[in-house]
Amino acid sequence: MKLYTYFRSSAAYRVRIALNLKGLHYDALPVHLLKDGGQQRQEEYRQINPSGLVPAFQDDRITLTQSMAIIEYLDERFPAVPLLPQDVAGRARVRELAQIIACDIHPLNNLRVLRYLVHELKLDEDAKNAWIRHWIGEGLASLEAHLARDPAAGPFCHGGAPTMADCFLVPQVFNAQRFDIDIAAYPNIARINALCVDMPAFVAAHPSKQPDAE
Amino acid sequence: MKLYTYFRSSAAYRVRIALNLKGLHYDALPVHLLKDGGQQRQEEYRQINPSGLVPAFQDDRITLTQSMAIIEYLDERFPAVPLLPQDVAGRARVRELAQIIACDIHPLNNLRVLRYLVHELKLDEDAKNAWIRHWIGEGLASLEAHLARDPAAGPFCHGGAPTMADCFLVPQVFNAQRFDIDIAAYPNIARINALCVDMPAFVAAHPSKQPDAE
Repeated sequence: MKLYTYFRSSAAYRVRIALNLKGLHYDALPVHLLKDGGQQRQEEYRQINPSGLVPAFQDDRITLTQSMAIIEYLDERFPAVPLLPQDVAGRARVRELAQIIACDIHPLNNLRVLRYLVHELKLDEDAKNAWIRHWIGEGLASLEAHLARDPAAGPFCHGGAPTMADCFLVPQVFNAQRFDIDIAAYPNIARINALCVDMPAFVAAHPSKQPDAE
Repeated sequence: MKLYTYFRSSAAYRVRIALNLKGLHYDALPVHLLKDGGQQRQEEYRQINPSGLVPAFQDDRITLTQSMAIIEYLDERFPAVPLLPQDVAGRARVRELAQIIACDIHPLNNLRVLRYLVHELKLDEDAKNAWIRHWIGEGLASLEAHLARDPAAGPFCHGGAPTMADCFLVPQVFNAQRFDIDIAAYPNIARINALCVDMPAFVAAHPSKQPDAE
């Protein structure tokens, strides 16, 4: 298995956590998002992922992009350490939590969007940071409200073991902290994050532990 | 079953298509995104969806938000008309296609983001439209490239019957056309859309056919 990855990419970080939780060995192939005008946008990488984004995943059967699709694929192929609950409602809830991050928070703050804000809209550093903080703040508040109201939230996002939702939560918190957002304002998120970050699977997936870390 | 919906919401439109494809009856509860400062942001609706976004779905077992989580839930509870293929690789591919739309295109162009561009960043109409066209154009080009390279694309996004990917494609095309984007530049997308839009399940889900249509 190969993972095309960038150490600081939130979406790649999610997949690294999932692979580690399942104990799957993979080859990390770094794609540098800043070097050479963005290696992810070069023709060679677009043969792997025409979208020009990381991560991309390959095994003997498939080339796959989109972090959530990759994690669901891993969960179906290697079910031994499940990342989705067995019950229909539980599965729906875990997907919902992951999608709050994947659809409502992260897309507004990734590299290509920040580039557009700076290069096309000529935003200064303050306005760019206000944008980032606005969307992360709104998104984490939503996620916190969903976690707070649901009795299925356990020590982790859903119950007593990490699920796909935790694979999404930890990289989003890492991303928020890079922009000096204090996650103490979101007690359930802070609590779950603190529990996860010390687990070996999460530690090994951390950006600072990647072969391409700077 | 209840669907909190807004006729023009792309995310609600996806779920309406899925419900119709499965032949499921539901009560449509309109949430007006523009009236009363946005009914989706009011306390009453936030009891249903703390994120303050449509759609939200309720049945006797669950209250659920996020269009993709809702559709996967429907597919697991009512498998008679499947919206995901049976094989693991096919399922992964359908999720990937849906997520290209759900994660890489739509989040950048929904109402709350356009509002921020106009009210906070003071973008004029031209700059706002350039933003919309940029992200939809880039996203549809990615989707087109994914469809073009994969032999599993059939008359529909994946094979010979509509899947979750088609539930996402049609509302995204509708949205693109609202902003005068010519989808003829994306031949696979245009072809699949043309096939879908005349099917009864898609016709009945169209914004113009909703009880709250204006």
